[in-house]
Amino acid sequence: MKDMLGRDSVMTADRAIGLILDVVGSRRTRIISVDVSQSLGMVCAEDVISAEDSPAFARSTVDGYAVRAEDTFGARESMPAYLNLTGEIVMGEEASAPLSDDGAFRIPTGGMLPKGADAVVMFEHVQVIDDRIIEVMKPVAPGENVIQTGEDVAAGEIVLRSGSRLRSQEIGACTGIGVSEIRVFSRPVVSIISTGDEIVAAEKKPDVGQIRDSNSYMIAAMVSAAGGVPLRKGIYRDEYTAIRNAVEEALKDSDAIAVSGGTSVGTKDMIARIIDDMGSPGILFHGVSLKPGKPMIGGVLQGVPIFGLPGHPAAVSVCFEIFIRPVLNLLSGLEDRPAYRLKGIVRARLSRNVSSAGGREEHIRAMIEERDDGIWAVPILGKSGLIRTLVKADGTFVIPLNRSGIEKGEFVDLRLF
Amino acid sequence: MKDMLGRDSVMTADRAIGLILDVVGSRRTRIISVDVSQSLGMVCAEDVISAEDSPAFARSTVDGYAVRAEDTFGARESMPAYLNLTGEIVMGEEASAPLSDDGAFRIPTGGMLPKGADAVVMFEHVQVIDDRIIEVMKPVAPGENVIQTGEDVAAGEIVLRSGSRLRSQEIGACTGIGVSEIRVFSRPVVSIISTGDEIVAAEKKPDVGQIRDSNSYMIAAMVSAAGGVPLRKGIYRDEYTAIRNAVEEALKDSDAIAVSGGTSVGTKDMIARIIDDMGSPGILFHGVSLKPGKPMIGGVLQGVPIFGLPGHPAAVSVCFEIFIRPVLNLLSGLEDRPAYRLKGIVRARLSRNVSSAGGREEHIRAMIEERDDGIWAVPILGKSGLIRTLVKADGTFVIPLNRSGIEKGEFVDLRLF
Repeated sequence: MKDMLGRDSVMTADRAIGLILDVVGSRRTRIISVDVSQSLGMVCAEDVISAEDSPAFARSTVDGYAVRAEDTFGARESMPAYLNLTGEIVMGEEASAPLSDDGAFRIPTGGMLPKGADAVVMFEHVQVIDDRIIEVMKPVAPGENVIQTGEDVAAGEIVLRSGSRLRSQEIGACTGIGVSEIRVFSRPVVSIISTGDEIVAAEKKPDVGQIRDSNSYMIAAMVSAAGGVPLRKGIYRDEYTAIRNAVEEALKDSDAIAVSGGTSVGTKDMIARIIDDMGSPGILFHGVSLKPGKPMIGGVLQGVPIFGLPGHPAAVSVCFEIFIRPVLNLLSGLEDRPAYRLKGIVRARLSRNVSSAGGREEHIRAMIEERDDGIWAVPILGKSGLIRTLVKADGTFVIPLNRSGIEKGEFVDLRLF
Repeated sequence: MKDMLGRDSVMTADRAIGLILDVVGSRRTRIISVDVSQSLGMVCAEDVISAEDSPAFARSTVDGYAVRAEDTFGARESMPAYLNLTGEIVMGEEASAPLSDDGAFRIPTGGMLPKGADAVVMFEHVQVIDDRIIEVMKPVAPGENVIQTGEDVAAGEIVLRSGSRLRSQEIGACTGIGVSEIRVFSRPVVSIISTGDEIVAAEKKPDVGQIRDSNSYMIAAMVSAAGGVPLRKGIYRDEYTAIRNAVEEALKDSDAIAVSGGTSVGTKDMIARIIDDMGSPGILFHGVSLKPGKPMIGGVLQGVPIFGLPGHPAAVSVCFEIFIRPVLNLLSGLEDRPAYRLKGIVRARLSRNVSSAGGREEHIRAMIEERDDGIWAVPILGKSGLIRTLVKADGTFVIPLNRSGIEKGEFVDLRLF
């Protein structure tokens, strides 16, 4: 795409990912049932509604004596209420008898309140006279030290909403109300197609001029970390038919496709052409005003988002965050909860001036330094092709499109790897 | 433990975890070899040293013409340098011949520089006259648009240090230098022993007075999320011998043990007694100045850290973060990199005053709200026994020991779940 002056006019990253998300629209991965204990990190595909009250019975929240609150009204140290010790609650069992007037049951934390009791007096406010009489030295209000039937979750109540991610507490919540299987969106399957005449399998010793297929391993790890399932589909030569066939195959079992490599303009153009030739809408963008990551390609085929990733590791990392992660989140039904977006972002002050050419969104790698006066981001400047700078880095921050740099001491949001 | 006035004197959480970490000392999980592609999130147990240069040959970083820089010196649009096009570099192959004086090879991004070339002129600065002559309209400096042999990683250089966590870029880096197996600390195995006469297996319908074993599922999920391997060891009645035997068994295959449940003081005391009876140092703390989480128990047996967790889900969640996660990080050899600590922490302003009794560290659950003026933490106040408040919450923030509250508008660090 050229503008009127013949310069490359490339799209902003925001607009580019917007195009993809629009076309993906309401497409989601398959809904499956999984054992709750295997659902960590997955996304709930249906509201979970409790079939029962939780707790199923009124429980004591302290060690003490179950009483009728009104029998303690007015009690104080100088004039305690005398109650008849009528029994002891055994954990996991119902009381042997209901509570009688002016009666009290010894009850442990978590014990079930006997019929007739509506509060629990803590041990420390009770004086035991003998095995039949206790003195209560402080009144309790009805409901005090008790968790009521259904107080946590009432039968018929929605416990989890569709779109929420299953964290440890959601797994606990489901288990607690007897939900052992849960409907979730299956993890999005991402096929990774490596291309390049110079690329050899990682386990091979490269000949002169060749390099190992390391990007596909890096992409696979990013897919896993983002909750997806990576399928490394092998290495293909920079030939139209070979790559087209590989994409065709991948469309059969993928929720998204990442074509890695193709560093030269000619190869990039070929990958874009293949995507465009294969169907509608085909290519949605080819080149973005992004550094690193300018040669990024994106499109949709048969509803499946497909990306042509740059060859440099730092660009791969940036493009994955900007383009592939949001698509995986959308496909797996994840709701847009601020906490999901903010997790992994640290506000830090920039340790030195960093300039940018402007007109493109620039992502700079940085290390975190904790100093006496707070958290600082120390930029790592270096060629984007180098994996070493990525290994040193803790994350990246952005110099926006419309800025020519960020000054020392300004705050940046560092997105941690 | 009582102080001179007979009040319970409990330890601060900082001191309590310090005691455990001191005893665990230099104990680490077993070192194992894993396939690099399976190492995501694990911790490097040995420095990874590159056996080779990366790249193994000088490569072009652009599409253009490989030249001897000095042949372009002084070139400009009005007086270009004329070079002889002597060939084309094919991806993955060595040049057919060395570069001659005033020669140029067409070269793609990633192509191997021919012998004699030391720079690459980008396409846009070249005018092709015919299939033998090109005009170079801008000079290049030696090394320009080239990544040198070993510039990313030199043979003998340390690529990854022991103690670093394997992220996607570390996996890419290893693959790139031909390292396909890596020595890592095995994931710490955490046995979870559920106790309580009222607890029934999650898949059973509880009788009146009983509840399901949901905490062990929640703890298991937290262990997984923290990079460990949970082993749910079943449910045991509140009996000395039963629980002691379960702990004895767990010591055989665990890097750490979590005993869940035992909500009443009597049961807590029994669990503490069991740990203390079983060996040295036994119990290190019993009760901490923490809310929720006061009844927390910690000790070490045969070098294995063992915890008695409170029964309430919110307390379990807090105690896991404070006590178990640092122990798992230590056991799995993770270095103390600020980014590892800061990941998942969001600075937010508090939406309302929150008071605390003081004298204990209080952890308050909160939701995140994004407003026009920034990120706010909205506290969720409710009984700690309720799982519902945990499901609603995005994370927790701390009111320190020595403060009686935090005012509306103050910044808090919210630790996201």
